[in-house]
Formats: sequence, structure tokens, C-alpha cells
Amino acid sequence: MVNINVQEAKDKITKIFMNVGVNKDEATIIAQMLVEADQRGVHSHGILCTARYVKLIREGKMRPNMNINVLKDNGVVAVWDGNHSSGQILGYRSMEEAIKKAKEHGIGFVCVKGANHFGALAYYAQMAQRAGMIGTALGTGDSTMAPWGGCEKVIGNNPISVAAPARNEVSPVLDMAMTVVANGKVSNMKRQGATEIPEGWGLDREGVPTTSMKDYYTIPPMAGYKGWGMAVMVDILAGVLFGGGTGDRAKDSADGPSIMMIAMDISAFNDEEKYFSDVDARINELKSSKKAKYSNGILMPGEIEANKFAASEKSGIVEVLLENLDMVNDIAKEMAIEPIEIIK
Amino acid sequence: MVNINVQEAKDKITKIFMNVGVNKDEATIIAQMLVEADQRGVHSHGILCTARYVKLIREGKMRPNMNINVLKDNGVVAVWDGNHSSGQILGYRSMEEAIKKAKEHGIGFVCVKGANHFGALAYYAQMAQRAGMIGTALGTGDSTMAPWGGCEKVIGNNPISVAAPARNEVSPVLDMAMTVVANGKVSNMKRQGATEIPEGWGLDREGVPTTSMKDYYTIPPMAGYKGWGMAVMVDILAGVLFGGGTGDRAKDSADGPSIMMIAMDISAFNDEEKYFSDVDARINELKSSKKAKYSNGILMPGEIEANKFAASEKSGIVEVLLENLDMVNDIAKEMAIEPIEIIK
Repeated sequence: MVNINVQEAKDKITKIFMNVGVNKDEATIIAQMLVEADQRGVHSHGILCTARYVKLIREGKMRPNMNINVLKDNGVVAVWDGNHSSGQILGYRSMEEAIKKAKEHGIGFVCVKGANHFGALAYYAQMAQRAGMIGTALGTGDSTMAPWGGCEKVIGNNPISVAAPARNEVSPVLDMAMTVVANGKVSNMKRQGATEIPEGWGLDREGVPTTSMKDYYTIPPMAGYKGWGMAVMVDILAGVLFGGGTGDRAKDSADGPSIMMIAMDISAFNDEEKYFSDVDARINELKSSKKAKYSNGILMPGEIEANKFAASEKSGIVEVLLENLDMVNDIAKEMAIEPIEIIK
Repeated sequence: MVNINVQEAKDKITKIFMNVGVNKDEATIIAQMLVEADQRGVHSHGILCTARYVKLIREGKMRPNMNINVLKDNGVVAVWDGNHSSGQILGYRSMEEAIKKAKEHGIGFVCVKGANHFGALAYYAQMAQRAGMIGTALGTGDSTMAPWGGCEKVIGNNPISVAAPARNEVSPVLDMAMTVVANGKVSNMKRQGATEIPEGWGLDREGVPTTSMKDYYTIPPMAGYKGWGMAVMVDILAGVLFGGGTGDRAKDSADGPSIMMIAMDISAFNDEEKYFSDVDARINELKSSKKAKYSNGILMPGEIEANKFAASEKSGIVEVLLENLDMVNDIAKEMAIEPIEIIK
């Protein structure tokens, strides 16, 4: 891991996207979202994605600037065709629209099909949270998981994120995929030369549990049939319901993934003062309950990430993987953009 | 297990509830919901609950007839205070209202606090499904689970249910709690004299994993921190957001549990014909993917329950646990209602 300057990283990644034709506003948003993922410690969705997105734009698989068709909009619910614009920008703009709808109607639903990789869903749920609302994002992903009882990769890890605002306590943010662990974790272990994987993390090509890296083919759903059941329902809600991509059709190079954004305005449900005082009290009650023996403590969902983010915002410095920084700087060099410097 | 007649069971349980002052319409709905849970094989939420509800009504903890205050209603979102009416009736009426709202606005949210035990959430999600919509129900439960890293029971198993309609395939219905297994499963094993429980199913009083029934105190969340994170978010969405009961406050004898019902009208999101043809195709694609070695097949969420229900509807006969039937017949006897007969 190496340290870099937050603002410098945002500026230079903005320039990289502008170099492939993204307008300044959108390039700034994409760079902001990538760096923020690293600031939260979610390196799989951070600056690592820069190269992937640049490649998609260069290959004509991702539009450099957003261009949508509004397929449905009744004021409360909207469905957009993203026409293969940037997943990040579609995600950002659709949650903005969901928040706008929620201000007017208490609830806003915006669904987007024909997108590209959305990055970390937590960002969108947190947009609502930062606006004082509850935010939810559900997304389809391309096939990485086998059904419970199956062995063929036919469904995505179909992540969900929910974020709720608190006042004095850390605002909880759930962001999880339906696999037992992230695919990236096993790939990382493989790259590092591991020959064994933990029990429960892998299935072989015939769908039989394995701890051998050599035989490993895919990751089972979390909690067995429960994770499988949730993946199916996310597939329907965030995909089939409005014609979005599911399974192999959710690849960036095919129909693309799709997403359902929900914003809920607290004042439609409750007195806002009461909500904020209750949510702080509830978080405090849960966190101050008795710790288990050998436990490091009770953490709210997203608390580790929130603490990392707060520290990074304060210092202006973010930790990234050297190999990810090298990939970004390789692109920068090719574009005659000054590299992002490592802070010694 | 013994077989009884579906209609006879409904009629006699209706009479039992009428005997304690429930009006005919509401008694009919409660009886219908309890028997349907047994028809789906979900015996923990079936006729077993009759005695519990009768007791709550007799003790004055459950109103015999529904009486609500509408706290908020902007057309799309409503919040009700259930004033400790029957959870079943509140659930039924609030999903009816959510469906009505969804017909008008594409989406309907109805939240209910101050309820009583809701029974099986799947019933409510399926009400929307049967109306050709997608239905979702999230509920708070009283403290049965410790936080991830904790050992004190401070949060409910906070179930969620999602049901989506299909046309030619079995309509998927997810109904799951956030514990690794249902509490009832371990209690049943204990009653049957088991001294050991499977690995991963139990924590002792200090929050340390145990397989000893003697040391068993509580069930961990499914998928570890993921299930914990989901339980927290359901606590906020279906409870704190609108002032509903969470933790020990969700007990029938305290504030009572609370619920969030969501109905989504497909025509607000898509052409209905396209949705139904796509959802059938997707279910078929998943189910016909390659089976794992040693697997009995690939099942959609709720498929086992749907098949049991269809068979029971066809035969007019439902299988129930003898001990549960005995409890119902004991109450019937006391009320001079003819007992439900066992079919030989």
C-alpha cells in the first residue's frame, strides 16, 4: 500500500477521463467516486477501475458522455435506458432524480438499464443519506455465481446497498453482494500463490465444495439457499422488472448491468427530529450491548469504511494499492498527464 | 403429522376467533392465513399460532377488531398506528392499501407500528403477487439475536419477504429471517432431546460458538456480518424510520412489532406482457442450468412451499403437527366448538 494525495488523485483521474472525451462535470464525478472508494478502503471499486473504464470508452462500449432515454416517468417511478453511458454517471444522476422525486412524493424510484459497471453501490445509497434520506440501491451483475444446487455461472452476485442517516452516531451503510465472499478475495489469494482456500468459499466445476485452489471454479451464495433466494429477487427487481440485463446479458459488452435506486424522505414517515433522536439511540443501544468473549467489538455496517473515510478526508491522504496506482500512472504517462505522486 | 380438511380447519378456527370477539370478516382472514401457512409447510406460523392469539386477545394485549390511526398519508406513503390490533389483520389491510396506492402511483408504501405478531410475511408479499404486482414486506421482531461481535439478545431476526408474479413458471417468493436457522429449529431439537447442535448454529452466553445444546444461548446471524448488517437496516426501515418497535420494544406485550409493506405495479416499470414473458424465461433459464453433482435440483425461492400449497388446495387436505392440532382442539372444546377431525 502507498499513500497519495486525495485532491491530486481526483484531479489527475479527471484529466484522464477528459482525455478520452468525457466532459469536465462527468469526469469530475467519476474521479470523485473512484477515489472515495479507496478512501473507504474498498480498493476493488476504487482507482483500479480507471483502466477498465478508459478501455470501455476507447472500444466504444461506454459512451464518454451521458445520453439517456426516459422510458417511463409518472413522477414517482422512472425507468431510463442508459444507452451504455458510464455506470457511474447513470448511477449518480438516477439517484439525484430519485432524491428529487422523494422530496415531492416521499418516495422516489429510478431504474436504469443499459448501463456499464456501476462501481460501489454504497456511493449512491450514501447520496440519499447525505441528503438526509434513506437510500437503497440494488444492482444486477453478470454471471459469477451458480444457483444453489447448480454448478453453472448463470447469475450475478447482485449487490444491494442501504444507507440511513444518523446525527451523532456513525450513519450505517450496508453494501453487500450475495456471494459468501467477494470474487476479488479469491483472485487475490490465487495471485499471491495460495493453493488452498477456506472451507465454504469454493465450488469446483461440478458444484462440489472444495478447498483446493486448483479445483476452484466459483463462489457459493452467502448463507446457502438464503443468498441464492436474495440473488434471484434482486435479479427480478433490479433487472427483469424493467427489462434490465441479467446473467451474461448484464456484461458491459452485452446489454450491460441495471440498477434500481430508491430514495425515502424521512418527513413522509415521521417527525424528522424524532427519527434522528431514535436512530442515534438505537445505534448506541446496539453498540453498547455486551461484547462477546474474544470479540474486538460491535460494529455497525459500514463503520470501518466510514472511519477510514473520515481519517482520509481529514489528512487529505488516501492509501491505495501500488499495482492499482501503477495502472493509473501508466495511462497518465501515455496521455502526457503528470503521474500521481507517492507520498514518502 | 396428521391430515385435516382445509375448509373445516378454516371454519372452526374462524369460530374460535369469533368466540373471543373478533368480527366474522377478520376472523375469516386470520383463519385463512394460519391454515395457508400450514398448507405451505410453514408450521411455525400456522394453526400453532391460534392459542397465542386467543391468549393475547383474552389478556387485552390484542384488540379483537382492527382500530387504527392514520399518522401520515400523502397518497404514496402511509404510516398507521395499529393500536395493538391483530398483526394479521393489520398486515392484510396495510398490504391491501399498498396495492391500492401502487395502482394509482406505481408504488405504494404502508408502514404499521403498534402491531402484534404478523405471522408469515410471505402471505403479504403474495397478496401483491396475486394482484399481479411485486410485493415486499419487512418486519421487526423482538430480541432473539446478538450483534455480530456481541452476546446479548438485542435485535430481532427481522424477516423480509419478496414475491414476484410469474405466468407459466412457479412465482418466486422469498421469506427469510436474518438468523442462520429459524429459532424454532433449535427449540424443536431440544424438545426432542438432542444434546448437540450443528456447527455454526449456536452461541453460548459469552458469544462463543458452541455445538452443545446445554451451552446454547442464541443463534448467530446468517452469513455473519452480512446478516447482522441486514438485520440493522431492517430494524431502521421497518422500525426506527416511522417510530416502530425494535429490540425488546417489539414484543407483543410492549410497543409491538412493526412492518413496512411495499407494492410495485409492473405497468409503472414495463410493458406487462414483456415482463411476464421475460420473468418466465429467466426462471426457466436458471432452473434448467446444469445441476451440481449430488444435488437434488435447482429450486426457486418458495418453490417447495408453492408445490405443497398447490397439492393441498387440490386435495382439500392439509398436513399439520398433531401437537398443534391438539392445542387448537383444546381451545375449541373449551368453547363448545366441534373439534377439527383427523382424516384417517
